[in-house]
Amino acid sequence: MSSSLWITLAWMLLVPGWAMGGPKQSSSARSDIRNCSTTPPYLPPTVTDTRARLDALRQSMQTHNVSAYIIPATDAHMSEYIAERDARLAWISGFTGSAGTGVVTTGKAALWTDSRYWTQAERQMDCNWELKKTGWTDSIGEWLLQEVPAGESIGLDPFLFSIDLWKSYAHVLQDTGRTLLPTGDNLVDLVWGQQRPPPPTSQIYLLPEAFVGSTWQEKVSGIRSQMEQHSWSPTAVLLSALEETAWLFNLRGDDIPYNPVFYSYALLTVSSVSLFVDRTRLTEEALQALTAQCPGPLCVQVEEYGQVQAAVRAYAQGDVRVWIGAEYTTYGLYSVVPQDKLVESSYSPVMTTKAVKNAKEQAMLRTCHVRDAVGVIRYLLWLEKNVPKGSVNEFSGARHVDQLRRDLEHSKGASFETISASGLNAALAHYSPSNGSSRTLSVDEMYLSDSGGQYLDGTTDITRTLHWGDPTPLQKEAYTRVLMGNIDLARLVFPSKTSGRMVEAFARRALWEVGLNYGHGTGHGIGNFLSVHEWPVGFQSNNIPLAKGMFTSIEPGYYQDGEFGIRIEDVALVVEAQTKHGAGQNPFLTFEVVSLVPYDRNLIDPSILSEEQIQYLNAYYETIRQHVGPELQQHRLAEEYEWLWRNTQPFSRGTLVATSLGTLAIASLVSLLLPDWQA
Amino acid sequence: MSSSLWITLAWMLLVPGWAMGGPKQSSSARSDIRNCSTTPPYLPPTVTDTRARLDALRQSMQTHNVSAYIIPATDAHMSEYIAERDARLAWISGFTGSAGTGVVTTGKAALWTDSRYWTQAERQMDCNWELKKTGWTDSIGEWLLQEVPAGESIGLDPFLFSIDLWKSYAHVLQDTGRTLLPTGDNLVDLVWGQQRPPPPTSQIYLLPEAFVGSTWQEKVSGIRSQMEQHSWSPTAVLLSALEETAWLFNLRGDDIPYNPVFYSYALLTVSSVSLFVDRTRLTEEALQALTAQCPGPLCVQVEEYGQVQAAVRAYAQGDVRVWIGAEYTTYGLYSVVPQDKLVESSYSPVMTTKAVKNAKEQAMLRTCHVRDAVGVIRYLLWLEKNVPKGSVNEFSGARHVDQLRRDLEHSKGASFETISASGLNAALAHYSPSNGSSRTLSVDEMYLSDSGGQYLDGTTDITRTLHWGDPTPLQKEAYTRVLMGNIDLARLVFPSKTSGRMVEAFARRALWEVGLNYGHGTGHGIGNFLSVHEWPVGFQSNNIPLAKGMFTSIEPGYYQDGEFGIRIEDVALVVEAQTKHGAGQNPFLTFEVVSLVPYDRNLIDPSILSEEQIQYLNAYYETIRQHVGPELQQHRLAEEYEWLWRNTQPFSRGTLVATSLGTLAIASLVSLLLPDWQA
Repeated sequence: MSSSLWITLAWMLLVPGWAMGGPKQSSSARSDIRNCSTTPPYLPPTVTDTRARLDALRQSMQTHNVSAYIIPATDAHMSEYIAERDARLAWISGFTGSAGTGVVTTGKAALWTDSRYWTQAERQMDCNWELKKTGWTDSIGEWLLQEVPAGESIGLDPFLFSIDLWKSYAHVLQDTGRTLLPTGDNLVDLVWGQQRPPPPTSQIYLLPEAFVGSTWQEKVSGIRSQMEQHSWSPTAVLLSALEETAWLFNLRGDDIPYNPVFYSYALLTVSSVSLFVDRTRLTEEALQALTAQCPGPLCVQVEEYGQVQAAVRAYAQGDVRVWIGAEYTTYGLYSVVPQDKLVESSYSPVMTTKAVKNAKEQAMLRTCHVRDAVGVIRYLLWLEKNVPKGSVNEFSGARHVDQLRRDLEHSKGASFETISASGLNAALAHYSPSNGSSRTLSVDEMYLSDSGGQYLDGTTDITRTLHWGDPTPLQKEAYTRVLMGNIDLARLVFPSKTSGRMVEAFARRALWEVGLNYGHGTGHGIGNFLSVHEWPVGFQSNNIPLAKGMFTSIEPGYYQDGEFGIRIEDVALVVEAQTKHGAGQNPFLTFEVVSLVPYDRNLIDPSILSEEQIQYLNAYYETIRQHVGPELQQHRLAEEYEWLWRNTQPFSRGTLVATSLGTLAIASLVSLLLPDWQA
Repeated sequence: MSSSLWITLAWMLLVPGWAMGGPKQSSSARSDIRNCSTTPPYLPPTVTDTRARLDALRQSMQTHNVSAYIIPATDAHMSEYIAERDARLAWISGFTGSAGTGVVTTGKAALWTDSRYWTQAERQMDCNWELKKTGWTDSIGEWLLQEVPAGESIGLDPFLFSIDLWKSYAHVLQDTGRTLLPTGDNLVDLVWGQQRPPPPTSQIYLLPEAFVGSTWQEKVSGIRSQMEQHSWSPTAVLLSALEETAWLFNLRGDDIPYNPVFYSYALLTVSSVSLFVDRTRLTEEALQALTAQCPGPLCVQVEEYGQVQAAVRAYAQGDVRVWIGAEYTTYGLYSVVPQDKLVESSYSPVMTTKAVKNAKEQAMLRTCHVRDAVGVIRYLLWLEKNVPKGSVNEFSGARHVDQLRRDLEHSKGASFETISASGLNAALAHYSPSNGSSRTLSVDEMYLSDSGGQYLDGTTDITRTLHWGDPTPLQKEAYTRVLMGNIDLARLVFPSKTSGRMVEAFARRALWEVGLNYGHGTGHGIGNFLSVHEWPVGFQSNNIPLAKGMFTSIEPGYYQDGEFGIRIEDVALVVEAQTKHGAGQNPFLTFEVVSLVPYDRNLIDPSILSEEQIQYLNAYYETIRQHVGPELQQHRLAEEYEWLWRNTQPFSRGTLVATSLGTLAIASLVSLLLPDWQA
């Protein structure tokens, strides 16, 4: 999927020349966006009045002696999705997009976001806020230098900034006379006060044993051996990403929409394990599982969530070395440990271990994708029947596929907000429909459906793009080339330890060949009933090398501004490849696609596929039949079964291509010369 | 080509899983390498006696209060190739390989180098030196911690270490009680004394006007506009790489083998230009060209080479900002400028500007490749006639191709030491033959020739691999797949600003498909009568994005340890691609191969080539005919002309492949059914 931070990162990592512009619309005479140049300003009803909030924040800033305050859109765990109580930027500015930074000074307020969100920001912000349509950190730094006089301080909450981001602000302000001042309290929280949503109280539960890949004790032991083998001999690992703790202890919660995680930290040392969490929320069973082996090295000490800083500070007094994942630990937590006691790697050993699924986890992810395919196939058949009637819109479509998934065994809801986009809306990478404004699906437009489910045994994410009428030649060519990219990457054979970045261009080559491209990343890791975007697997420069047992999405696309959008996304497992000459210690690898839903035949032009691509596609369709067919039969979904069979017929190349031409020519010739011989 | 630092870097940048092992040979009972475990040790005649040199160095270390001294294999300009007088590591250790680091303590001496050089080190070093067969910086750091007691100092010459390398040593020793001590004098030079080769006295000359792409004044003005446009407003650019100065001033020298450069630095400010060089070596004409517009902003002040440090220090007193290329500026020069007055980028604007050739430079590089092809084709024909007689060995072959090049117009010799490797020798990436030991070429073995020329109008570099007898199926398959990789990358269409790293896997895919790979990089930039390995262009992670007007080699290979080696290398120009849908501000790009020598038909299996690869190959051969044919005719090289024609016949796929099968089937059927119809 693609509607959130993952895509933001993916966009930001691309070279500048690749970035696609946002939709170009004139801002004059539109009633859906604000107009601050009239007197009084025009404000649409979607705007939030931020006057009082800003006044209160400025008073608080004065009390804390800061002349500017920086407000990011993330939480203390650098989460991609955040809970309502962490939506500080949305509360203070009105802007609810997932990517952005706000800065409030004594006289001004400005918000930086990327082109995907400019229209949304103009719909949601009142005229107390300026919208900054430029690059981020550098631009914010320059603006601060301009707005904040030398000698004054710029405040921020060090627990909401990554180490790198903090350092880049510090670098810009260095030697300029302005001070970067960490505020003890979060000033927005102080102002938000009683209106701020309270901490969650829902239960934190144990993953049922049937869905556990390894016991938490096995995981703890595994991490401890990695600590032993590390050349810097760390004595502890500090876990601050929410999925690290959830994974390590086989616990789940629901503090963040679509992500079965819960507010927590953990400090895993060579001899002890501390879990920082609201103890009262743990089920009896969970508490029992964590403390059964107390006292001892496999006894979990449950401490208060808010105590993590003090506990880490106390621990760091000793002769210790604390291993952190530098990509997502906040500057606040990082600065608690003296520099010479830190062992930094991009990702903690928990992150990198979690990325490689063991046999049971692989089997579970495969199984849930078979069930998930049933849900998606039911949706595709339903669309085929109902779109021609004009009775489906983007929102009702999204609700329908969500419901079909919820009906499946082990369902725990959607894994992200369903993207359901018709016609030109699909060209917006972040589009999700709302009940109020939603386009009706039509046989005259392409439709893009990007959705996924959470199940006790795994997380899914799949995108199919469809057309039920007569696609234009460009739509058909672009779709086929996106599919060629998907296939070329999926069938690639590559050496062990190859980084995704080195091979992702195979998903683009077929588009590049005719001068087309797409402006986002090509894939991301995925969890076992955890994050739908699971770092650090994927095809970007900050991902770790691909290894057997990793799962990643493969999702090339093509977007024609103001007209249509195409994306074809599957989840694939990295497996060992059988090659003619390769063998030995470092086997070659390839992908096994575990998403099992056919592509839209109406949009495929087989004449531009290579023989190898057609062979691959036919083999994939055969796999779908073998795995999903019985599942449909078992649920007595006869019509869906027939649909599946029809939509997985083998392909052959069109009439103008070599092989077929040969065959055709022979056949014609034979019938010409020997009319009685049935060729 | 591949026998030097470029390959070292390329190797080191690869993921560990890709590194190929060195040749596996038992060290027992061999007379060519030392044996330090016997009493007395066995030393082959190729060894240097380092006892006295080490004693003298240790005395000098004592005087300078250092307990260890680190000796790298580069010079003060971070040159890839170095002059004899900079071969400090070779002099103190005996080891002449291009990559290595030596460390001498009061009691020990150790040398670190990579697997390519282990055998060579055992042939050249006496038993005063330990050979360290492990990774570099970390391992050296650990060894130093073990050998040097806390409280003592480790000395090095800060003018022989890059900024990053210095910092990585500093990082390892941080908080350990050992001090990294820059020594004012280079201690090896002190000990080397009068025996050290003197500074060169040869002339530094102006590039003839016919071979100048832009005047030096135009170049200086161009760099100054880049300084103006830079957001940090640098007031000067400090040039420390030798090819920067040679390029900027259109001057050439011969201080370093194969590289027409000369010892120099330059400081280019908004209002002045200083060239630090031995003034007496400049030709009258050169001095005149540099000072014709004095005084003024386009007047070059010629200062003494040794004054650069003082001049930069003096300049840095002012309200200035000095822009440096951080990848290749030494720590010594870097530390002369206060941190807040530095503007660092990986490469200086001179490096990045030089990388993009203008129309005249492109035309010159194309032209010299046509002449160069004549030399290589004459060599290939000569081999074809003489190898079967058994009268050619690796060394005489190398001498012959070097001579053929020297006979060409505008020749200035070879652009690197010719690699001429038969049979198993070609599996060693760094192999060059010597007069003493040289394998005879045979129709029973593969032969790899990697060579290039310096010409007044450009630099060339080409590799062809050959077999005059019956190659094995593996040899033929591997060769064809290396060729497929070369073609797939050469014909790739990609967006502007794509980095080489993102596309280099296209050169590997055909090998990967059957479990094969190669352990070096895929290409490097090349100069106009400058370095054969011209940074920062290429396919590695530290190269800059590909842009129109850049030249790069494309050189996939395959190496079978102890048996054979294959590499196919061409130089290609990045050009705009014509695509069906792409247009606008950021056109798509592709490559135009400018090396114009056919591949070995005896090693190509057309049945595994795709239609597109065959079409590409046939079009390339047609280009060779058009450009090289007339050149051969003009020089009345009739036999070569005939050879060229024969070796550039168009290919078609073999008999077992689709199209041909179709055609064949039709033809057979027609002749069967209608024997009188001439199909």
